[in-house]
Order: sequence, then structure tokens, then C-alpha cells
Amino acid sequence: MLGAWARGGWRAVRRCASLPRAVRLRVRDALGAREPAEAVRVQGWVRSVRSQKEVLFLHINDGSSLEHLQVVADSSLENKLVCLKDLTFGSAVEVQGKLVKSPHRMQNMELQAETIRVVGPCDIWSFPLKMKERHPLEYVRQFPHLRCRNNTLGSLLRIRSEATAAIHSFFQDNGYVHIHTPIITSNDCEGAGELFQIEASSEVRESAEKTHFFNVPAFLTVSGQLHLEVMAGAFTHVFTFGPTFRAENSQSRRHLAEFYMVEAELSFTESLQDIMQVMEDLFKTVTSTVLSKCPRDVELFHKYVSPAQKDRLEQILKNKFVTITYSEAVEILKQASQTFTFKPEWGCDLQTEHEKYLVKHCGEVPVFVINYPYDLKPFYMRDNEDGPQHTVAAVDLLVPGIGELCGGSLREERLPFLESRLQRLGLADAYQWYLDLRKFGSVPHGGFGMGFERYLQYILGVDNIKDVIPFPRFSHSCLL
Amino acid sequence: MLGAWARGGWRAVRRCASLPRAVRLRVRDALGAREPAEAVRVQGWVRSVRSQKEVLFLHINDGSSLEHLQVVADSSLENKLVCLKDLTFGSAVEVQGKLVKSPHRMQNMELQAETIRVVGPCDIWSFPLKMKERHPLEYVRQFPHLRCRNNTLGSLLRIRSEATAAIHSFFQDNGYVHIHTPIITSNDCEGAGELFQIEASSEVRESAEKTHFFNVPAFLTVSGQLHLEVMAGAFTHVFTFGPTFRAENSQSRRHLAEFYMVEAELSFTESLQDIMQVMEDLFKTVTSTVLSKCPRDVELFHKYVSPAQKDRLEQILKNKFVTITYSEAVEILKQASQTFTFKPEWGCDLQTEHEKYLVKHCGEVPVFVINYPYDLKPFYMRDNEDGPQHTVAAVDLLVPGIGELCGGSLREERLPFLESRLQRLGLADAYQWYLDLRKFGSVPHGGFGMGFERYLQYILGVDNIKDVIPFPRFSHSCLL
Repeated sequence: MLGAWARGGWRAVRRCASLPRAVRLRVRDALGAREPAEAVRVQGWVRSVRSQKEVLFLHINDGSSLEHLQVVADSSLENKLVCLKDLTFGSAVEVQGKLVKSPHRMQNMELQAETIRVVGPCDIWSFPLKMKERHPLEYVRQFPHLRCRNNTLGSLLRIRSEATAAIHSFFQDNGYVHIHTPIITSNDCEGAGELFQIEASSEVRESAEKTHFFNVPAFLTVSGQLHLEVMAGAFTHVFTFGPTFRAENSQSRRHLAEFYMVEAELSFTESLQDIMQVMEDLFKTVTSTVLSKCPRDVELFHKYVSPAQKDRLEQILKNKFVTITYSEAVEILKQASQTFTFKPEWGCDLQTEHEKYLVKHCGEVPVFVINYPYDLKPFYMRDNEDGPQHTVAAVDLLVPGIGELCGGSLREERLPFLESRLQRLGLADAYQWYLDLRKFGSVPHGGFGMGFERYLQYILGVDNIKDVIPFPRFSHSCLL
Repeated sequence: MLGAWARGGWRAVRRCASLPRAVRLRVRDALGAREPAEAVRVQGWVRSVRSQKEVLFLHINDGSSLEHLQVVADSSLENKLVCLKDLTFGSAVEVQGKLVKSPHRMQNMELQAETIRVVGPCDIWSFPLKMKERHPLEYVRQFPHLRCRNNTLGSLLRIRSEATAAIHSFFQDNGYVHIHTPIITSNDCEGAGELFQIEASSEVRESAEKTHFFNVPAFLTVSGQLHLEVMAGAFTHVFTFGPTFRAENSQSRRHLAEFYMVEAELSFTESLQDIMQVMEDLFKTVTSTVLSKCPRDVELFHKYVSPAQKDRLEQILKNKFVTITYSEAVEILKQASQTFTFKPEWGCDLQTEHEKYLVKHCGEVPVFVINYPYDLKPFYMRDNEDGPQHTVAAVDLLVPGIGELCGGSLREERLPFLESRLQRLGLADAYQWYLDLRKFGSVPHGGFGMGFERYLQYILGVDNIKDVIPFPRFSHSCLL
């Protein structure tokens, strides 16, 4: 492949004492430079090698951008390279030289190499990624420790990082206090769902009749909501953004055992619409930020993974989200020409097929469904005191292709309502501290949660949720 | 307490339809306003109530700042208040009125009330916090769901929130990609320490001879380092900031079962000094940001919790951190006039008493200790290939009052070194994926971790680590 170069037997200089120590530049900064520069040093991994007569072209990438930096080495580099055989796809190199305007239309700058040093060779025969191949996501998912070097996953993780920062900024800019809610907890928030239980590993080993490490059974959190409510009673507006866990034994494209949730609680909030406004603002602000900060990374998804998602997103950012009540939703479903596996009926949960139909019915845009049946929802949701169909002030945000992206509600701030409901459920003792909050300056409040992985799936049009996390797991069997 | 007011029997108007809907202001914004304003609405909790002849003074706080907003209500409010008995310490109120310049030296603005509405009363007899009392930290720690309404904890959590944001900004501004490293993992990183093991709760209940949920034993992470190393091989500079866990059965002031760590990895890093520079920059940037963004909150700690810490911090921010080698440290300890419980000896771990002495010896400033004995440190640290005293390129940052705040090292990037070390430890099979990374473009790299709670303890001078987390736990027995 290297032709004249390999035959030339050029030699690398491991430390080039004769050159001044060059300014280190990330690939992103080199590509974006406005002016040419002497004595520049760029480090990264080789993404392609191509030799033409007396010129060698390398593309190198250091993960700072999707675009590679083109390195051009002419024959003046002769006698400065050893181990040319090591200069392969996947190898790590340090290149020193001049940053110049590129004659090529597709790139702004390129690097004219004065020295090229192979820092770390790559065993290309056993390396599962191959030069210039577009590996399917299912293929790279098999290599959790290497797939981040693939273009698609590189873009995904840069987008995930920008979205994370944008979420923190959104709340900080709006006066919310960030709270690290507990990961290990003795409450299960919704009183439902599969939990993970934890013990000190020595105790697991030593004894079946053990005492618990924390003296009480301890679980991984399924939501930080109840803890956030505590904090909303002091700071008015609070948020958390951390890992949550469900031990659902599912191989689905839609579920993870460990996933991230953004959750917020707002005191002095009497209307569900105020909560929905924050949900909509969060979605639009974070999405706009990601689109403007990672245009090329997002483009890759909208070009190769989910064509047409770009236009849809732009439309969504321009328009107000649609709102319908649960009762309206059931009517829409009942009048549908489509037949459903689960017959739509007031008082029953909306199934995935129902959610899909509703979103389609509303024009493939995000849809808020509000005021769910009282008996369907957890104890902490606020009683609407309506009738004959008894509802709570709950909201789910449904989005195309995903289903439920966010869920929220007003919380029951009235002690008598909450007390009698918890007593009926036999939970009054366990939630004494939660009842306590209603005795001391309790105010109307509400909040919501958004699944971060589902958010990424939605804006990028990624089918499998395992492709939007840094380390995928297979069949619950492969952890890293 | 309310004197003339109570006797007056004033009445509140629950919805005051005659007034235009006022602009809602947070307490912080009201206090910082430059101009007086009509029709302002402020919501919060009452921190003090004082009546003087025909005037009522309230202090209200909504958690947006340490300072309270003074509300002044004169007799024109007569006949607009009901339930005056509910207007107590801890009750939640909504006040509408005029924001005016305050005649008092200590505050910029105050609110002249036109209506006061008690949104949520407070049962002051059972409320554990009392008006105008400075409750000790040990006292409020007993009420994990209420202590955030205490001034000290309020300030702490605002500072924690700002520090969290500053950490994210520091790394983002410096081109790091943020990675959510796994919480549930099958590797234990250091091969030591007590782990928490997890199982689906149904499996814990059902069977002693169970199959694992993930098919292999699964643990809570003790560090995201190895996963970050994977990512540094794609993005060059990466960081994580998440929960980590140790099942240390300790009642200490210095340890938590669940705590937060900031961790970063840097590829193309050949010198330990480069890692130390990032540690020092992180510390100084985040601390400066916190000092400038939360001056009053920090002042509370530096006034009541740890006097003199303010001057010490300012000195530390001005000067370069001190660096000594482990061997120099042992010599300093051997020459100390002090007698230690653990005799200082080359090859032995530095104990807390040693760390304290070293920090004192260097002038009560942060001290980097570098190049630790090879046999003391985990397998991934880079062999210095020195002798006769064999060391690795490791660094600990010691700070006064705390001991180890950060730890880092160059990582062993050379396959043969790592392979033989893992084989000697019998870990080569378990870490096959980690060895794999050294075959494919392996580069010199290093990283570090900083305990977030210890950082907060240090800058604020807080003695007990339970006082810098949102929800304290007692004796491992009280979870919330």
C-alpha cells in the first residue's frame, strides 16, 4: 500500500532536538485555524494511509471532531522515518510540521509534515475495525472497548457530552440548584418495578442469614423524585441528572438496566402547564444547543442513520407541542380505523401501539397527554378532584418512534389527601418522612423526569438504545 | 409574638383579583434589583416574624440565596389577612407588593407588602428547626428531609451545585469529552477494597442458588478509570463525574459508602507533571469560581464553621503547589522530632499521621507526593524502571485537614510490562480487554481522580464528610 515510501526506508526521529518545541494543537483546532502556522504538533490515530508517487497522505483523528486532519508528507521527509510498516490504520502518531491552507475544497487546513513519529502501532490483523469500512452498529456493539473509535460512536459520544453540558446549563441559567440525589436508597419511589438490591460483597459471600450492610434492605434508585421534593422545599427549583436502575429482564431495543434521567422539581407551581412549559423549553433548548455545537456529528446521523429526521426536528423546534387529555386520547383511539391488540378503554394504560397511533394522529410531533386516571398513577400525583372520571394532574410526553420521553405531574401537597391515600396502600409508615414534608410549609409543586437515552435516540433517530450509551451490554451477560 | 397584628385580625385575600398579575421574582433577584418596581410577587418560606406597633416585618427565603428578603407590611394591609396564626416561622407565603430601596444598611431592597397569602402553614411545635437558632450540624443531621432548610446546609448545597457546574465547565472549556462510565460493572479496578454486589431483588428473595441477573457477579463501580482509559483511546481527553462506592464498614468522619469522584484521562501524556498541572488547574479554577459565584455562602463557612480558612485558601490560590517525591517524604518523616504510631519506612504506605506531618512540614499547603514504591500501587501504574528503589509514576495530592484529596498516575501503556504484571497477579484473563487496548494504537497516557466530598470539606473547612452530602446517613442504618 505504501509503495515508494516503503521502498525508500525513511527513518523517524524519536525526539527531534533540532526543531523548536512545536505548539500542540487538537485536530479540531487545526481544522478550524484561520491562519497558517509554523511549528505545529498534532497527535492522533491514523484513519487512512494513501501514498501517491512521492507524496504520502494520512488522515489523523484525535476524537475532538468527526473530521480528520489531512497530513501531507513529501519526499523531503526521506530518511526520517523508521518502522514505516507501523504507520497503519489504527496506529497512533505524532506529526510535527506546518499548518497550511488546503488546496482541497472539502477541508480548510492541512498539515505539511516535517516529522512523523509512530507512538503506538496497531495490530491491524486482530483489530476489529477496518479502514474505510462503514461498520454496522450491531457489529461494533460486540467490541465495547473499541467501538468508540468508530465514526458513528465517536459522533454519538461527542453529542452525548454536549447534551449533558447543555442540560446542566439550561437548569443553571434558570436558577435551579443541582442536587446529587442518593443512588443507594431504601425507598422505591413508585412502589412498583423491579429493583436491584445491594449488599457488601463480603456479606453476600459469608452468610445467607446475613444482617444487611445498612441494617435495612437497600436498593439502587429508580428515581430521584422524592428526594428532589425534599430539596424543592428549600430551594424552590431543583434538578438532578444521574443514573437510575430497573432490573427489567428485557432484551428490548427500548430498555436498559442502567440509564440516565434528568429530573426537576418546582415549588410554588399550581398548574400542570407550568411543568409542561419547562419540559418543552428543556427539550428545545438542549436540542438547539446540540444542533449548533455538533453540526457535523448530528449530520452523520441524519445522513446515514435516520434520513429525514433533520427536517422533522427543525419543524418540531419551531412549533408548540400538542396537548390532549387522556380522555381525548381514548376517544381518538376508539374512533381509529386501526384495530389494536389491546382495546382502548378509559381506565387502562396506553400501550406502545396506542402511543404510536396518537403521535401519528397528531402529525408525528411530540404530544403531551394530560390528566390520567387516578387509579393508574402513583400515590404522589395530585388529585384533580373531578368526576365522574377521577383523574390526577399527570402528564406524559410522547414522541414519534420512542413513545414516552418524559413523565411528570403536580404532586399531592395536601396532607389529608396524601395521608389517606398512603394509608389505603399500607405505606403510611414507610413514607412518614414524606408525609412530614406536608406539615411544614407545604406548597403546590410539581416536577418531571426525562429519560436521557430516549432523548438521544429520538433526536438522532437511533433504533437501539444500546447504541446511545458509552458501554453496551449484551443479554445481561457482558459487563465491562 | 405578633402583638397588635394578631389582635387586629387582618384578613388575607386568597386570590386578589383586583390587582394586576405581578411579576414573579426570586428572592435573589429581588435583593439584587437596581431599581424599585411595582407589582412584584415573591414566594418563599418565613424565616422570621417581628411586629412593631403598626408594622409587621417578615424575612422570607426561597433558597435562591443565603440572604432573606425583608417584607414590610403596614396597617393598610388590615382586613386582608386571615389565619394570621398561620404566619409563623417555617410557613410558606406569597407576597405581592412594591419593591423599594431599603432604608437599612444591611440590605439593598425590601418588599412593601400589598397582600400576604399563607400558602402552606408550618406546625411549629413539631418542626425541628427553630426561629433564629443556630442549630449545630450534628443536630440537623438527624433530620435528613428537613435540614436543607437550615442556613448552613442551604449554603452548602448551593456551593455544591456551583462547584458541580464549575467542574463540568472546566473540562468542557478545555476540550474534554464527558463520559458516563458504568455504575454497574464486573471489574473492581483496583483489585482491592470492599465492593457492593448487586442482584435483582426478586432473585435475592427467591433463591440462594441463584443465577446472576447479568450472568456474572456484578458490582457497584469503585472508579471509572479503566472505562475512561478506553475512551481516552478515542477522544484523547475525557472526564467523568459520578457516584462511586466502597462498602467500608466505617463510622468515620472521612468516609462514605457512596461518594462522588471527578476523574480525567489524558492520552499523549508522557509526563506526570502534565497530569499534576491539570489537577492544580482544576482545583484552582473550580475554587475561584465558587468563591466568586457564592461569596456569601462561602463566607458563612469561613465565619462560623472554619475561621481562617478564607485567608489560607487565598494564599493557596496564589502559589504553586509544592511537589516532593515519596522518597523525600520518607526522609522528612524519619528526621521528624515527632514520634509516629507507624514508623516511617521506605516501602510502606503513608498513614494519616504521616500525611498530616508532611503537609504541616510544607507550610499547611497542598503537597504533591510523587513516585511511590512499585509494590504499593495497582497494576496499571507506569513502571519508572528505576532502582534500586523501584517506583511507579504515581502522584497523590495531600491537603491540610483532609489527607489525600486526589490520586493519579501515568498508566502502563506498554503491552509487555502490563502483561507480565497481570500474569504475576493472576489477572491476565479478567483484564484481557484492558490488555487489548495496548495492541491497537496504545499511547502514553495518564489520569487522576479527585474526591468531590473531600474537596468540599477542604475548601469550606467542614469536619464531617456527612455534612457535605445532600442526604446524610447514620451508622449505615438510616437511608432515605
